[in-house]
Amino acid sequence: MKKMKASQFAVDRQFEYGTPEQNETVQAVIRDVQERKDAALLEWTEKFDRVRIDQLKVSQKQIDDAYGQVDEAFLNSLRKAMQNIRVFHEKQKRSSWMDLQPDGTMLGQVMRPLKRVGVYVPGGKAAYPSSVLMNVIPAQVAGVEEIVMVTPPASGGVAGIHPAILVAANELGIREIYGVGGAQAIAALAYGTETIQPVDKICGPGNIFVALAKRYVYGAVAIDSIAGPTDIVVFADGKANPEYVAADMLSQAEHDEMASAILVTDSQQLAQQVEEQLEQQLSRLQRREIAQASLDKNGAILIADSLEEGMQAVNRIAPEHLELMVEEPLRWLGRVENAGAIFMGPYSSEPVGDYFAGPNHILPTNGTARFSSPLNVDDFMKKSSVIYFTKEALLENGEHITRLAYSEGLEAHAKAIEVRLRKEGNQE
Amino acid sequence: MKKMKASQFAVDRQFEYGTPEQNETVQAVIRDVQERKDAALLEWTEKFDRVRIDQLKVSQKQIDDAYGQVDEAFLNSLRKAMQNIRVFHEKQKRSSWMDLQPDGTMLGQVMRPLKRVGVYVPGGKAAYPSSVLMNVIPAQVAGVEEIVMVTPPASGGVAGIHPAILVAANELGIREIYGVGGAQAIAALAYGTETIQPVDKICGPGNIFVALAKRYVYGAVAIDSIAGPTDIVVFADGKANPEYVAADMLSQAEHDEMASAILVTDSQQLAQQVEEQLEQQLSRLQRREIAQASLDKNGAILIADSLEEGMQAVNRIAPEHLELMVEEPLRWLGRVENAGAIFMGPYSSEPVGDYFAGPNHILPTNGTARFSSPLNVDDFMKKSSVIYFTKEALLENGEHITRLAYSEGLEAHAKAIEVRLRKEGNQE
Repeated sequence: MKKMKASQFAVDRQFEYGTPEQNETVQAVIRDVQERKDAALLEWTEKFDRVRIDQLKVSQKQIDDAYGQVDEAFLNSLRKAMQNIRVFHEKQKRSSWMDLQPDGTMLGQVMRPLKRVGVYVPGGKAAYPSSVLMNVIPAQVAGVEEIVMVTPPASGGVAGIHPAILVAANELGIREIYGVGGAQAIAALAYGTETIQPVDKICGPGNIFVALAKRYVYGAVAIDSIAGPTDIVVFADGKANPEYVAADMLSQAEHDEMASAILVTDSQQLAQQVEEQLEQQLSRLQRREIAQASLDKNGAILIADSLEEGMQAVNRIAPEHLELMVEEPLRWLGRVENAGAIFMGPYSSEPVGDYFAGPNHILPTNGTARFSSPLNVDDFMKKSSVIYFTKEALLENGEHITRLAYSEGLEAHAKAIEVRLRKEGNQE
Repeated sequence: MKKMKASQFAVDRQFEYGTPEQNETVQAVIRDVQERKDAALLEWTEKFDRVRIDQLKVSQKQIDDAYGQVDEAFLNSLRKAMQNIRVFHEKQKRSSWMDLQPDGTMLGQVMRPLKRVGVYVPGGKAAYPSSVLMNVIPAQVAGVEEIVMVTPPASGGVAGIHPAILVAANELGIREIYGVGGAQAIAALAYGTETIQPVDKICGPGNIFVALAKRYVYGAVAIDSIAGPTDIVVFADGKANPEYVAADMLSQAEHDEMASAILVTDSQQLAQQVEEQLEQQLSRLQRREIAQASLDKNGAILIADSLEEGMQAVNRIAPEHLELMVEEPLRWLGRVENAGAIFMGPYSSEPVGDYFAGPNHILPTNGTARFSSPLNVDDFMKKSSVIYFTKEALLENGEHITRLAYSEGLEAHAKAIEVRLRKEGNQE
């Protein structure tokens, strides 16, 4: 793990554009799904996932069966989390508005939900039902009518899918689940097949093939983002509890070797104590190999001359998760320029937000907090501008409009106004 | 021009992914700018724009000179438009919020402006100062501190740039303008050079090379959208004025041959009259060749059995601009599912919105109104979630959090909570 002065830390962003071969594969798969639709989905699934499936859609019977494989306590905690997430996202919902002028002119903005959204849920041995909640609930709060889930099938599970995923989906009222993953699933969602109707937006993370496919279909449909490796910065002063700091860093480092966990502090002593804690706690972790590799590659302890200087490093990093483990966290909140989610004080450990508190855990990674936001209800709504101009307003302002149109050489734009000025002006 | 039943109209979306050669060129240019920075910008400008420049940045002297080449009346109309656009976008601005729970827990959402934004302004013979206003004002209202403009240089103009562009930029207080365009300008904005600092987001339309470059750098920076050909749908009943309908269709058709203008009506008679008017008005247009080609290729008159059926076609098309030229436009507003901007009644001609009323004229094209929005203040802000959990809240809910973490196999997540429960719980 690096240990260095905060002012000297250079941020290294990793962007995955894939190899030329990966790009070619993805484009070939997408074209094939566009042409041969369902037949292509089944073939690519057999090829990539090594599973032969005869139907894409998961049946309600299979979903019901999944309940037999999860315990009651899990279900109870899941439902509690669901409720908190829903309450938080309800507060993000916005109304249409209009603005009336004295001359009767009305200008406004209409908010409407997207109609149909696709959620990609990664497969593999670990299942993340919490991500199902985080993707689906903002869409539901926005008012999206049709939400469809795709996830790669494996051998085992229910219909090759982890039961916790099916249960989470069912608890949310999702009825349309397809056992298909990879670039082929993204193509199906973007362009449609006999079985899968196309969607307006695709959300959810996946492997490199999924990321490249999302980049490719972007424009034909909306996508949420291209997810990068996950990260945390703990911003701490000398009074922070080193045991908590280290535990929170490890909770990020355990995700995968690409994950990054960074401590920024003005206290040499805390830095030292956190190092010791990391070592101790690591030795007790079952996932220590992953966490160790992550710390070795991407972990860092940055010592700043002052907390002010430390905050500059935080803003350069633009962390996905930022913990303010300082005596007076509110004093620092306004100084944070770039962060996906901000956890304040010693009891707001990152997993509180990952699972339970209510805010979304799908956050801007890889420094993109400079310009993007946690997944939220706005991501599932679209706006339309509304313009109602009165005759009076047109007669009053028509000349400005024609002048600007002519200045841009757009004659027919000017004439569309002039024909009205001529006709309506004469009637006065 | 096609004339057919509305129910039979099939929407044909055109997505520009470029030829393999164009993609290779763009990637080569981007890599070169990443490596050789300013030197690469100058060379590619000489190669593509056939202009040899010795400095990238436009000087204040040059900007001041541009004022000598625009007239006072234009400037007056531009300023009026500027004010209207600013007033409308001010209404889009949103505040940070927080939500306090009885146990002292605070959850919230902080809104912050992006720090630095780049606006691409296309070159060519025609200049569109209105687009400068529409790109820059929402960013300024959001609170973006640094806004930089890039535009390809040509021979002529002031520093190779149309004076109206420089004047519009200066009126808005933009001081950082670079005479560079194409994929090389996008690369400079995304990754930075000696002269041009990198930005957080790139906005504005351009040619195919610009579009491909934006698609490529997406992720390293934010982009607004990939613009497609422009379009209008006029939704009209038998009482609509055919002269106005035709004039508004032509105001769209004159943009370029790819533009599309469609009438949707339940009145055979109006359809007939609009056809006649199109012919008459076309003959008087200087830009008739472009408008004629656009109507031939992409124009259509769609006859619906009822306005209800007509509205279904409108929603399938998801127009960029939608005019509701019907007796009671408000009755139809709620039925519109997909449209970038909606113009209500006979006096809300599309150019009213293009230039003057206040709402943005940068709108979702190519059917993307199904999932995207007019350019707006939100596009220049980012959100951060804020979580402040109290000790009480953690002790109360910790068990749910650890249970969910263990269910996903994320042991260190659970332990970050457990270390606190053990320590804080014992103190009680």
